[in-house]
Amino acid sequence: MMPMIPPDTIRITPATRADVPLILDLIRGLADYEKLSHEVVATEDLLLQHLFGPRPAAEVLLAYRGDHAVGFALYFQSFSTFLGRPGIYLEDVYVRPEVRGKGVGKALLREVARVAMARACGRLEWSVLDWNEPALRFYKSLGAKPMDEWTVHRVTGDALRKLAGL
Amino acid sequence: MMPMIPPDTIRITPATRADVPLILDLIRGLADYEKLSHEVVATEDLLLQHLFGPRPAAEVLLAYRGDHAVGFALYFQSFSTFLGRPGIYLEDVYVRPEVRGKGVGKALLREVARVAMARACGRLEWSVLDWNEPALRFYKSLGAKPMDEWTVHRVTGDALRKLAGL
Repeated sequence: MMPMIPPDTIRITPATRADVPLILDLIRGLADYEKLSHEVVATEDLLLQHLFGPRPAAEVLLAYRGDHAVGFALYFQSFSTFLGRPGIYLEDVYVRPEVRGKGVGKALLREVARVAMARACGRLEWSVLDWNEPALRFYKSLGAKPMDEWTVHRVTGDALRKLAGL
Repeated sequence: MMPMIPPDTIRITPATRADVPLILDLIRGLADYEKLSHEVVATEDLLLQHLFGPRPAAEVLLAYRGDHAVGFALYFQSFSTFLGRPGIYLEDVYVRPEVRGKGVGKALLREVARVAMARACGRLEWSVLDWNEPALRFYKSLGAKPMDEWTVHRVTGDALRKLAGL
């Protein structure tokens, strides 16, 4: 008989190709929470190609509680010119609503911070929606500093094509 | 006799190892403009190692006007989970004060946008200081959308070590 995994045990593990359907499901869960479901056009094929192809664009960690997959973190390498060192940019961190407040988010962030330290990165950054009060409080408790003076600007679609002169 | 380069000709070119002292000088110029000179701890050795070693953490473009190096752009690959595609994050774009308003910044951004299109990236992003009104106007004119709802959070130094549990 297989030993049971205690239902409150948290385990963080790198995702593999076989996890692509699960990753897409978690991305959709995150988009739903952020009220941005209309923006999700990712497909399993795209994730397979860009995350598990010859030159992965990002890395994914999965969080399990007991034997349930309950969250993920996706990050890629950044670079700080002022530090002269790489950093880690955490594009997404998500925990399913029914298991919030049980340490899953913190376990994911701790593992990403360990990756950053292991790679001699100078910083770990991520973006937070201004109305997400529970997240803002949580990140403050971890020692994260809000970069209030800065605003991210984005060019996409036709504006990107036009800027490129195409 | 060498043909003269007309003094108002703008040329954008990828940086090489030999450009590291110039890149550091431009980084310091940017930090001075942003009133953040005290944050620059990058050295030529660090830039050489992380930008021109076996696994470059970012790419650098240099801008020349006539035969003077007058600006740079440094970017790395990002990833959008919602799009399921890579993007480009432009960490820095800088033009020396004495040649602003002459199209150098736009030429740098156009070239980064071309790289993004050539690599089938879904978006190009960068961060702007809220008090930098000329930059904000300029980026708006290019079709960039300010992501006003989001705030970047950063963990660095001791807080990063503590988060990693080290």
